[in-house]
Amino acid sequence: MNYKGRHYRTVWLEGETVHLIDQNLLPFEFRIRESKDFVTTCEAIKRMTVRGAPAIGAAGAFAMAQAFNEMPQGGGEEFLKQAKEKIEQTRPTGQNLFAAVRRVFAAATASDSPRTAACREALRIADEDVLCCRKIGEFGGALIKDGARIMTHCNAGWLACVDYGTALAPVYIARESGKKLFVYVSETRPRSQGAKLTAWELKNENVPFSLFADGAGAYLMKKEKVDLVIVGADRIARNGDVANKIGTFEKAIAAKGLGIPFFVAAPTSTIDAACASGDAIPIEYRDKSELLSQTVLTEEHGLVTGQIYPEDFPAVNPGFDVTPALYITGYITERGIIAPKDFQGFAQGSGG
Amino acid sequence: MNYKGRHYRTVWLEGETVHLIDQNLLPFEFRIRESKDFVTTCEAIKRMTVRGAPAIGAAGAFAMAQAFNEMPQGGGEEFLKQAKEKIEQTRPTGQNLFAAVRRVFAAATASDSPRTAACREALRIADEDVLCCRKIGEFGGALIKDGARIMTHCNAGWLACVDYGTALAPVYIARESGKKLFVYVSETRPRSQGAKLTAWELKNENVPFSLFADGAGAYLMKKEKVDLVIVGADRIARNGDVANKIGTFEKAIAAKGLGIPFFVAAPTSTIDAACASGDAIPIEYRDKSELLSQTVLTEEHGLVTGQIYPEDFPAVNPGFDVTPALYITGYITERGIIAPKDFQGFAQGSGG
Repeated sequence: MNYKGRHYRTVWLEGETVHLIDQNLLPFEFRIRESKDFVTTCEAIKRMTVRGAPAIGAAGAFAMAQAFNEMPQGGGEEFLKQAKEKIEQTRPTGQNLFAAVRRVFAAATASDSPRTAACREALRIADEDVLCCRKIGEFGGALIKDGARIMTHCNAGWLACVDYGTALAPVYIARESGKKLFVYVSETRPRSQGAKLTAWELKNENVPFSLFADGAGAYLMKKEKVDLVIVGADRIARNGDVANKIGTFEKAIAAKGLGIPFFVAAPTSTIDAACASGDAIPIEYRDKSELLSQTVLTEEHGLVTGQIYPEDFPAVNPGFDVTPALYITGYITERGIIAPKDFQGFAQGSGG
Repeated sequence: MNYKGRHYRTVWLEGETVHLIDQNLLPFEFRIRESKDFVTTCEAIKRMTVRGAPAIGAAGAFAMAQAFNEMPQGGGEEFLKQAKEKIEQTRPTGQNLFAAVRRVFAAATASDSPRTAACREALRIADEDVLCCRKIGEFGGALIKDGARIMTHCNAGWLACVDYGTALAPVYIARESGKKLFVYVSETRPRSQGAKLTAWELKNENVPFSLFADGAGAYLMKKEKVDLVIVGADRIARNGDVANKIGTFEKAIAAKGLGIPFFVAAPTSTIDAACASGDAIPIEYRDKSELLSQTVLTEEHGLVTGQIYPEDFPAVNPGFDVTPALYITGYITERGIIAPKDFQGFAQGSGG
């Protein structure tokens, strides 16, 4: 997508160097990190230079390709095994990461030219992700009428993928096709991915939008006549229950209460067919410091981190929530839009 | 209520000096401001040293009493008229402020000892507010079962009143009577009155609680089995629609969707019988800087204000929202708990 008129992917390979947009510095600074070896790429994944499951998958694939390139003459096997483990351990719950690393490893070890094969497979994974998101955008874009008002939560944009994004892909494709639209972006406390990443993306893509405080969602849906809500997904159970960023469930209840369509946009690889329902999805409770402290940009001291509230205040900080299928109008996938009543059958036929 | 084991009101009169807890410094610093003349008290109201309609009402009454005490020999009439206007202009929309100032003025001008009468009437207004909140607490406290889990939004505690509060009064009275309970406190972005004021109150009262990010409300209601939600009100229309801090409506929809009782606690003086429905209540859209910037406490630089997001990001910042009566289980007033079906009749009999 675009930054100052130039086209970028979130992560890409040039020669043997991985390039990544440093998402820790956004929205205040746009900087590209270069990683010349797989260990540095592992560090970048760990330090969240790149985040979002599909983008992490591509970064992991590139790291695996780098490891094949770095393997010593002769004793490559042990080196590669350890490299694979190291890459997989950068993030604990990355379904896409494991799958991508395994694919590169398998393609390379099956080939007479493992270095070339690893590199080619990694590039293919990234390209497939772009294509998949583009398809989601095309199917979802058809739901967006000219003049539509769309609400989204968190960041499921191109920064979370290699390009286009999931929840934002329909927005980008609808814009490409000349439709006017307006996006309401929730701040998404405590980590503020809406305000830091989605807002930054939309600004750079010249999509008109407004940020809002999370609690204002229902009021704005009603008052500003929001036409539809689109969010991403971290994991979708076989019955259609969706785990996603904390706050998704509250927006889904509000949308249902107000009669506003609520769509989940995600690649079919997000479907966990082995998971019967949302009850089986464990929810991570994260450190309360995310809620109690904040980094601000000041003229005098630059970026400064401090307490917004005393650190001894108790706080409960679930990182994700589960939205039951009954709140969802449809699932926008790269294979089309799936109605809730068809989801279980679809999941069993296609899920990862 | 209590701070470090000592009893305080939010605002009180000692001799001719008004004392106010400086709410701008909470939760990091507890400081009492002393105001020896009515002009200084006006400044304190303007600068939000004191906030919350009932607390502002009491502060305004004290300021009016101070003005009577300061009036010059002979030419008192013009001085008092100007003082009254000055006090009334400290805050544009304070229904309680106008009423309180008018009461003190009328009582004093009807008396042979205006100074004494003004002071006595102002003290009576403050005492009446305490009594009114205590009654709300007693009626509402009866709704709270032993072991209850209560959710609240924003600050409708004793800091918003002279003592006890409205939404929190039932919590305090239930605790007084020995009941165990737990309070979930929404951060209440963008001005964070939940995290700054409600959390501070509950901590000092030794009421167990947890802060949470606004978007987590619905998930916590369901997951942590919240028994009831209690919020305050800025204004209640004749038909029972409630204007309150932004975010109230979203919590009300979530509670209804999950079958959790949702109560509004407010004195009958909050009812505007002349207002037919919530549609007639104008909603203030506030400056987006409230959402985009933040003050943090740092070890190195003390309190520092900076941008959390770039100041050129567009943002929409409604300060309040309207919750239609159909989402409300009951209204906890100083005259009892009113069911929605009885509200219109009650409002027409008692409203301000």
